[in-house]
Amino acid sequence: MPRIDSAIACARAARRRFVAELAEFVGFASVSAQPARAPAVTRCAEWLAAHLREAGMEEVRVTPTAGHPIVTANWLHRPHAPTLLIYGHYDVQPADPEREWRSPPFSPEVRGGHLYGRGTSDDKGQMFAHVKALESWLRAADALPVNVRCLFEGEEETGSTHLGEFMRMYSHAVAADVAVVSDSWVLAADRPAIVESLRGALGVEVELRGAPRDLHAGNFGGAVYNPLKALSELLAGLHDRHGRIAVDGIYDRVREFTPQARAYMSRSGPTDAELLDAMRVSRGWGEEGYSLYERITIRPALILSGIDGGYTGPGAKAILPARAMARIDLRLVPDQDPYQVEHLLTAHIRRNVPQGMRVVTRTTMRAHPFVMSRDAPGVSAARAAYQGGYGIDPVFLRLGGTVPIAHMLTCRGVPLVMMGFALPDDAMHSLDERFSLAGYFRGIETSIHFMSMLATRCAGANADTRSDPLLEAAP
Amino acid sequence: MPRIDSAIACARAARRRFVAELAEFVGFASVSAQPARAPAVTRCAEWLAAHLREAGMEEVRVTPTAGHPIVTANWLHRPHAPTLLIYGHYDVQPADPEREWRSPPFSPEVRGGHLYGRGTSDDKGQMFAHVKALESWLRAADALPVNVRCLFEGEEETGSTHLGEFMRMYSHAVAADVAVVSDSWVLAADRPAIVESLRGALGVEVELRGAPRDLHAGNFGGAVYNPLKALSELLAGLHDRHGRIAVDGIYDRVREFTPQARAYMSRSGPTDAELLDAMRVSRGWGEEGYSLYERITIRPALILSGIDGGYTGPGAKAILPARAMARIDLRLVPDQDPYQVEHLLTAHIRRNVPQGMRVVTRTTMRAHPFVMSRDAPGVSAARAAYQGGYGIDPVFLRLGGTVPIAHMLTCRGVPLVMMGFALPDDAMHSLDERFSLAGYFRGIETSIHFMSMLATRCAGANADTRSDPLLEAAP
Repeated sequence: MPRIDSAIACARAARRRFVAELAEFVGFASVSAQPARAPAVTRCAEWLAAHLREAGMEEVRVTPTAGHPIVTANWLHRPHAPTLLIYGHYDVQPADPEREWRSPPFSPEVRGGHLYGRGTSDDKGQMFAHVKALESWLRAADALPVNVRCLFEGEEETGSTHLGEFMRMYSHAVAADVAVVSDSWVLAADRPAIVESLRGALGVEVELRGAPRDLHAGNFGGAVYNPLKALSELLAGLHDRHGRIAVDGIYDRVREFTPQARAYMSRSGPTDAELLDAMRVSRGWGEEGYSLYERITIRPALILSGIDGGYTGPGAKAILPARAMARIDLRLVPDQDPYQVEHLLTAHIRRNVPQGMRVVTRTTMRAHPFVMSRDAPGVSAARAAYQGGYGIDPVFLRLGGTVPIAHMLTCRGVPLVMMGFALPDDAMHSLDERFSLAGYFRGIETSIHFMSMLATRCAGANADTRSDPLLEAAP
Repeated sequence: MPRIDSAIACARAARRRFVAELAEFVGFASVSAQPARAPAVTRCAEWLAAHLREAGMEEVRVTPTAGHPIVTANWLHRPHAPTLLIYGHYDVQPADPEREWRSPPFSPEVRGGHLYGRGTSDDKGQMFAHVKALESWLRAADALPVNVRCLFEGEEETGSTHLGEFMRMYSHAVAADVAVVSDSWVLAADRPAIVESLRGALGVEVELRGAPRDLHAGNFGGAVYNPLKALSELLAGLHDRHGRIAVDGIYDRVREFTPQARAYMSRSGPTDAELLDAMRVSRGWGEEGYSLYERITIRPALILSGIDGGYTGPGAKAILPARAMARIDLRLVPDQDPYQVEHLLTAHIRRNVPQGMRVVTRTTMRAHPFVMSRDAPGVSAARAAYQGGYGIDPVFLRLGGTVPIAHMLTCRGVPLVMMGFALPDDAMHSLDERFSLAGYFRGIETSIHFMSMLATRCAGANADTRSDPLLEAAP
């Protein structure tokens, strides 16, 4: 069994290089949502594959999909050890408006102990911590303590559109005893966290169409229903006065959590004040009867994420627009089903559009919510790994975001542990996204520990790990 | 006195060239609202000035303003005849989205007897009809029947921002007995019309700001008030269920028209069916108790002309936006005052924004409504001119649009006659704007007749013109 000390020493000695390499990785504008960036996404995948080969991983492949490619790599030389699947995504959110960043989003820059750039924390930095852990093991010991499969996709930010098909075609690529995903965060540098639930998502674009072309606002204003007015009315009607979503039936399948579960959340999770601080706002809002932490994790939310209609360019253009569109982003909780909610929402929209106006809806994303059991395989190893990397026992955290892979792996029987390394104020999806270098280094060491713990615990070395079901699952 | 027959003959002989010259004029992308087009606006002004010189006009000047230049030209060789001011604007509305035009907006094309291109009818084609009438007189007779001043501005589509200041500095440029503006339309080729009222306008841009930056929709959705939601609620609340504007006090100064005036409108104006047809919609909407024609002319209207917030580019971006903005275009009727309505609207907005959200409003346009008396100078000459050009007595038409010069001239005591040559379905401000060549030719001849009638009637040649107050006004 390779020694963890030498892997840790190797990681510490290479920190400067590890930062430079992450910056190089972030330099690719791999924005999956923007067709014009497709070449950058592909170049990023190829760079990542070359990097994995150089780190010592084997069977490295860039597999094309109908969308962006998927990068896989293996190291499978321990027939008696469990197999770990490391999932991450090398695609990033759009960085618009790019000019408002303090430093350009794809020319990463270190300032005050943070690396700034689009994707530094979501998810390039966090997934790269695992890559650097693999490299540290392989350089220090020429071997890993467990078998490892890497699966890095390029479409997470657009709903992992082609990942399901890839998994069906290459099911061996996800054949593993446990999976780790680092696409979340710790509560603070001294409050590490294992994610025990995620919200699902449903993205719906709605467009209302009135006259076949824009009309002169002066000549015709007052005589025809304006699609922009109809859209405003529709959107304004999507919540009631109590902060609840006003779509019939949408709460029917929402699970009520026990007082014990809610008490744990209140004890261990972020406070209202901490969340307000993270959002940099002075007042919260939302569903009455729930804390802010509950509102963003165990309660569904309907977010208007974009709107467009008429003319908003420089100067004024006196038109009554022919159409207007909005993007609605619903976050779902157990036991909501995105297909059922889609049906409820689109039926609601159709019922609430004025006569004579045409409505077109388009679903852009569907992802199921995810819940992890605290007894699941890998959880105790993850706890021990945080003890090693952070020196602190982690809490169980619920998150409001969506990681489509989570539900997919659950369906395939691969238990998933979500270990975050970023911080809540790293501005994921926002301007000036960043990743603290300390978090990056702690992430690398935590990953090194995690692999070691998975191996040790599967060998039955430690009494307190007997409760880990991985013991039974491993060969 | 030059003979009208020779001027008409001259105009008829030059029709092909007149169309080519109008196409050249339309070819300048003189979009006043778009800063990037400023050079094209200036080039257009210079081309127009050169063209006026070539047509025989004198004292042609391009006067810079703090915005776009104003082109003036004179012909003042008849000390005993009245002076006519011809106003027009050479700037045009934005043509976005340009790719949706059947032919490019600034590469005009003749199809089916129409010239297509941005500004063909609003207002380049209509003002150019007067220019060609001047040229026809000057080529045929080397003189005009009346004194003429031309005033062609480049900021009408952005609210004539610097025209007032220009008039104060160069008051002689508008020293006239009567003014003619052709920036409207006839009801049909066989239903010419003199405009007897216009609506005023108030443009207000409203921006709501929440968190200082976009937030991740999944991570924070449900815990903070979304500016896009607040904006939708604000906009949805701007009308009541009866199609009335729901801003306190906004109807206080709205003049109620007499049953006689409304009966004339019903008899002479466009029917609901005609207006629906012009808008290409199947259903009307608006303030209960008024016909569509009344709703767009003698009743105020609040039009949402643009909205923008969050991300609406390709693909999805899961954000809860930091801000959202909308453009509100109010059309005002006698005796509403844009400054007072601005106060009412902005106060209403401030009252209806959720606590903790910042609101910024910006006024982009203020124009007073305009009403012409049927006894005003020039009106009988205009009626006779339409008889000459169209062979039909015109009706008095009310329009919903706004021509800022109208109120400015009224304030300066210059009576204004608005004679349209375009057609209601010429798609002003819309895609595929056009101007019928027959309308252009009829406009040129009507203008030739108008100048002749003004001269003749001022000479007292015709008994039925004694009622024209211009007789008293002229020297």
